[in-house]
Formats: sequence, structure tokens, C-alpha cells
Amino acid sequence: MKQIAEQYKRELLDNVLPFWTAHSRDEENGGFFTCLDRQGKVFDTDKFMWLQGREVWMFSMLYDKVEPRREWKDMALLGAKFMEQHGRDAEGNWYFSTTREGRPLIQPYNIFSDCFAAMGFGALYKIEENPVYHTIAKDTFENILRRRNDPKGKYTKNVPGTRSLKNFALPMILCNLSLELEHILGSEKVNEFIPEVLGEVMDVFYHKETGLVLENVLADGSFSDSFEGRLLNPGHAIEAMWFIMDLALRLNDPALAQKACNIGLKMLEYGWDQQYGGIFYFMDLHNHPQQQLEWDQKLWWVHLETLVFLAKGWQLTGNEACRTWFDKVHTYTWEHFKDKEYPEWFGYLNRQGQPLLPLKGGKWKGCFHVPRALYQVWQTLEKKPSFHSQAVIV
Amino acid sequence: MKQIAEQYKRELLDNVLPFWTAHSRDEENGGFFTCLDRQGKVFDTDKFMWLQGREVWMFSMLYDKVEPRREWKDMALLGAKFMEQHGRDAEGNWYFSTTREGRPLIQPYNIFSDCFAAMGFGALYKIEENPVYHTIAKDTFENILRRRNDPKGKYTKNVPGTRSLKNFALPMILCNLSLELEHILGSEKVNEFIPEVLGEVMDVFYHKETGLVLENVLADGSFSDSFEGRLLNPGHAIEAMWFIMDLALRLNDPALAQKACNIGLKMLEYGWDQQYGGIFYFMDLHNHPQQQLEWDQKLWWVHLETLVFLAKGWQLTGNEACRTWFDKVHTYTWEHFKDKEYPEWFGYLNRQGQPLLPLKGGKWKGCFHVPRALYQVWQTLEKKPSFHSQAVIV
Repeated sequence: MKQIAEQYKRELLDNVLPFWTAHSRDEENGGFFTCLDRQGKVFDTDKFMWLQGREVWMFSMLYDKVEPRREWKDMALLGAKFMEQHGRDAEGNWYFSTTREGRPLIQPYNIFSDCFAAMGFGALYKIEENPVYHTIAKDTFENILRRRNDPKGKYTKNVPGTRSLKNFALPMILCNLSLELEHILGSEKVNEFIPEVLGEVMDVFYHKETGLVLENVLADGSFSDSFEGRLLNPGHAIEAMWFIMDLALRLNDPALAQKACNIGLKMLEYGWDQQYGGIFYFMDLHNHPQQQLEWDQKLWWVHLETLVFLAKGWQLTGNEACRTWFDKVHTYTWEHFKDKEYPEWFGYLNRQGQPLLPLKGGKWKGCFHVPRALYQVWQTLEKKPSFHSQAVIV
Repeated sequence: MKQIAEQYKRELLDNVLPFWTAHSRDEENGGFFTCLDRQGKVFDTDKFMWLQGREVWMFSMLYDKVEPRREWKDMALLGAKFMEQHGRDAEGNWYFSTTREGRPLIQPYNIFSDCFAAMGFGALYKIEENPVYHTIAKDTFENILRRRNDPKGKYTKNVPGTRSLKNFALPMILCNLSLELEHILGSEKVNEFIPEVLGEVMDVFYHKETGLVLENVLADGSFSDSFEGRLLNPGHAIEAMWFIMDLALRLNDPALAQKACNIGLKMLEYGWDQQYGGIFYFMDLHNHPQQQLEWDQKLWWVHLETLVFLAKGWQLTGNEACRTWFDKVHTYTWEHFKDKEYPEWFGYLNRQGQPLLPLKGGKWKGCFHVPRALYQVWQTLEKKPSFHSQAVIV
């Protein structure tokens, strides 16, 4: 495991981060380019607020947790300045995207832009105590809470009242975001907040009959037999389970860690492609045809988040299945997603495991899942086991 | 060619239409089920207005043009009644979808629901002279014209003024719709209308530098170097070129037919997958990575509309390339899309040509492209050549 930890650390520091510091800086207008081809050349200059926020978070976190490299802080500040100047509408909602120069392109219909803005400014405040960053993180978080029961607001296409669905993504992200922002919100507020989001994830979206996690349920928590209601996203549920394991550590609750570990393993067994290997992107609870044409593709974040989950599951519970699965997913992931000729990793593979797009960054892939997972696995595998005495890290 | 015409006719009458009359009727609530699995079993009961309108059109048209079968008129009336009762909001805009019972689910954000409602009621009026159908078709068409410069209205996520794009789909559909509704709108109105939509398709979206057709251009008609601006959809452009050839026949303009034929052939050569065969779904003008993860998939409608285009191109211009390409696309299409074990055709194949989803109908595939193309190819190959004397249909 020590050797594996070292492998993740070296990949992070020597391959992935240098790609982003070399290619994603917009020296002219500030902020980050994220549409980068296989070799790192910019192929589109639009700026996506949630990827800006994620990159600010990434470099701030590394500066805080790994080492205070001036270059990393400069990256974080470059993104934050652009976001501060161009990222919000008059009500403080974060646009989905702007032009290279910062003119707004797509309205703030997507609350995840706000989530990652709050996360980015929160982490930046840890390494640069500018009260403006504190205010932006706090105000944005409060805005998310205000909007959370109707996150799309006027941009929703659903007719109210007919089939009121709620989505898993927001409570899931809030599990992680509340911990990330504890220094901004205060521990008391986080303590109040945790049981609520935890209950949503572990009781409401967790589907007891099957042991799987649903992406959408009706407002009263019941199952909806519709395309949205039947939808499963194994990678999403597995990622949520490592957020829950982080909460379990924070709450000193081994039973919760155990439960999250079991649910994640169940989703992984269900989502694994027996024919070609890798984890499916979307599935249907009743095995009906999905509406997502990309359902059988293999996505980088799904596999990387699964590795984080398995490392944490092993570290917290000592469950041998985590270790066996880690080997299997590690082998698939490094074999297929890591680009052996150029830096950074492929994002999108077809079902057979071949690259579907040559990009290293785009509208949905930025400087986030690859480096965060490399960091998380490295750190987790270096830790002593928690909660259980019998597991021995060798 | 006579044998081919017969093959398309038999497939239409003996295989495809019986599938829809047997499986898509909702006897309880009226309207059509369109989410049908490989064998025709209903797997989801939501009703999508644009697919309801398309099925009403299909059975009305067949009753009018092929033979007055009572069963076909009953199908059209079943769909029309449901649409009339449940399909529109208070302003007469057509919902995107309703529940099985007709409760509105998704708001009228998509103007193509209106296009196919107008087309359906227009065709129904030809076989059943109920003035209500005339009014619905006419009012809906006028509503489309009112909405056409801002088709998504309040549901658009674009910030006004930054990058005002217009989309190819609406002028393209209007080329076809204006001919379909000539008996409702009157020939004078159609004569006025044609030059405008024709100019949009053949001058504005046609990109002279490359000879290709763009999906989105800036409001002033210029190229936008963005994901949307670089987007190509070969099947869409090829389908438009058979609409244009129909207009050329209506206008008695052989030069226009020739031009449309050349543009369609160019798109087909550009869009053909040299490695696995079939036509790509989405491409990028600069060969950059696309945002559509389904870009390399092979879709039924793309191939069927191409066959219609090639049959018409051959019939109108005698261009030998149309005949060569027809053979190639025909072979690919029948080999891969036709289900040899159960009725109707597959809709979605992966790049390699294997079924990606087993469905015969869904949220986007209904009783439309397969039967319309079978009918069009059958009819076209039975006609004498037009415009050119040298082509001989053998």
C-alpha cells in the first residue's frame, strides 16, 4: 500500500498538476482555460464558473495541505480574481459560463456553480485571510440554502405539482461542502446541518428494497416509476459514500462508516461491466432502456471517486472486499484513463475502454477529480487504520 | 430499383405499421405510448407531445396517400383527441410531455412540439374535415411564427446580447411544414413564406468556405467559434436537403435541386465513418472534441433520412453518386438497424454498429422516421425521373 500511495503522490505532483499550471492560466484575462486538448492546447476559451471554482479550491487546498508553493497560491488567486470580477449576477448567483473576457453567457441555472464557488473561496480564505473571500463563501452558501428547494428556479421546465422530484446531487454535495466550509460557517452551524443532509442521503435516496441509491425521488421520498425515478448513477452514489465516511470520522461513528462502505460496495458490484470491465455511467433500476445515450460509457470521475471510496473504506472498516476491489478498479483505471504518451488523463472512454474524446479538459472536466482523487488516495493509504484494530496496512 | 421500392413498401406495411397499431394505442386514456421495448411492451407511460403529433401525422398521411384504411384513421383520431384535450397550456403552446392521463409534466419550452402538432392536425384535416382541426393547425402555425425569433422564450438559459445564436432546426422544419400545411395556409401565404426559409437554409446556415451546413450561427449569419458554432449534424443537414428538393419540385427549379443534392452529398461524405461504416451523429467543424458524448453513435433517423435524400437526389438529378451512395447506405442501414428477430427497427447503435439500447420507441423515437422514410423511398423509386432526361429508373 505504501508503494501505491507513492504512485498516486508522484502522478499528482509530477504529471497532473504541472499540466494545469502550464496550460490552464489565461494570462491575458485572468481565470482558467479548461478546454484543453490531448497535449494541453486550448481549443475553446469559454469559462465555466463551476470549473473555475473547482480549480481555485484545488490549488488552495494543495497549498494548505501539501506545501505552500507560491505557484499554487498564484493559480488560486488568478481564478478567484476572475470569478470575483465576472462570475455573479446582481443577486449574487453564479453564472454557468462567461466568455474568455468575462461577459456572461449562460444564466445561473445550475446551483452547482454556486457550490463550487463557495468551496473555492472557502479554501482560498484558509491560505489568504482576505475578508472578501470569507464573505463570498458565506453569502454563496447562504444563497444555496435559500435556493435549495427550488434549485433551478425560473429555469425549471417541470410543471409544478404533477411530479415533484428531488435530486440526490445537492444533499450529496452539501455533505462534503459543510465540512469544507466549517471554518467559515462555524462548528455549531455544521453540527446542526449534518443530520439533515445525512438523513437525506442515507434514508431518503437510499432505496431499502434494493440496497441501491436513487438519483431522484418524489418530494415525499417515495419511488417514482419514471425515467428520472428509475435512474441510477453508480459513480455518483459511490462518491457520496466517501463523503459520508468523512462525516462518520467527524462524528466518530464507526457504524455509519460501515453502512456507507456496504452501500458503496453494493453500488460498485451493481455498476461493474462484467463484459468489458469498468463502471457504467447510468443504469435503470428496472433494467429498462435509459434516456441517456452515454449510459454505457466509462467516465474518469466515476472510477477515480471509486478509488477514493475504496481506499477510505479499507482504511476505516478493514473490509477485505475494499482491498480486492481497489486492486481491480486501480488496474482498470490506470490502464485505460492515464494517457501514456501525454500528461493528464483521458476523461471519456467508450464501453470497450477506448478513448471517446481525446480531451484532457472541457466543459465538464477540469482540474478537479483526477488531482483530488490522487491526493485523497495518497493521503488515505498513508494513514493508520481508523475505527478498526484488525486491519494492517502493509 | 423496382425491387427496392417493393422491399420498402412491404417493410412499411407488413412489419413497421402493424407494430405501432398493435402496441402504441392507450385504450384507457387515449393517445399513444411511445416507450416500447424490443418486443413492443410498454416500459414507460409518459406522453411526449411531439411524438403524439408525429404519429397523428403518419397515420393521417397514410390514409390519405396510400389507402383509406379505417384502422389508420382510428389511430390518428385517438392521438388527436388526447392532444386536443390535454396537449396545450392556456396560451395554446404545446407541452413537451404529460403523464399517461394527460396531466402536464414538462412545460412548452420546445417549439418542435408545436411544429409536429401543426403537422399532425393539418394532415388529419385532409382526411376528416372537422373545422376544429383546421383551427388547431392554423393557430399553432401562427404561434410558431410569433415565437420563432425566441423559440425557447423564458426557458432559455442564454444571457441576451453576449452571443446571440440562431439554430438551423426551425427554418429547416419550416421548409417542410409550409408545404405540409399548404391546404391550411393557402398557396399565396406559402409562396410568400418559402423564399424566406429557403434563404435561411441555403445562404445563412450553409457555410460557403467548407461547403458544409452549420447547426448554429450568430444572429447576423456569421460563424461563431464556440461549441455550438462549430457543431455539425450531418443527418440533420442531409434531411434538410430532401426538404429543399421537395421545394425545388414545387418551385420547378432544377438548379435548386442540383444545389441541394450537392450539399447533401458533401455532408454525407464528410459524415461517413471510414472505420466502421455509418454516419456520425455529431462532428466539429474544426475537428475539436465535441461536447456531445454521443457524437460517434449511429442513429436510425440519420440513416433513414439519408436514404430518402439519396432516392430523391437520384430521381431529381440523375447524379450517379446518389445511386452508389444509396447502395452503400441501404446495405448498412438494413444490416444494422432492422431487427431480424422482432418487428420495427433499432434506434441507437454504438460506433461499431451494435445496438446500444434495445428499444423500438422512447422519448425521442416514435412512429415517424422509420415509416416516413420507408414510404418516401418506396414512392420516390416508383416515380419517373424529374428534371433530367438522362436518368433511367431500371
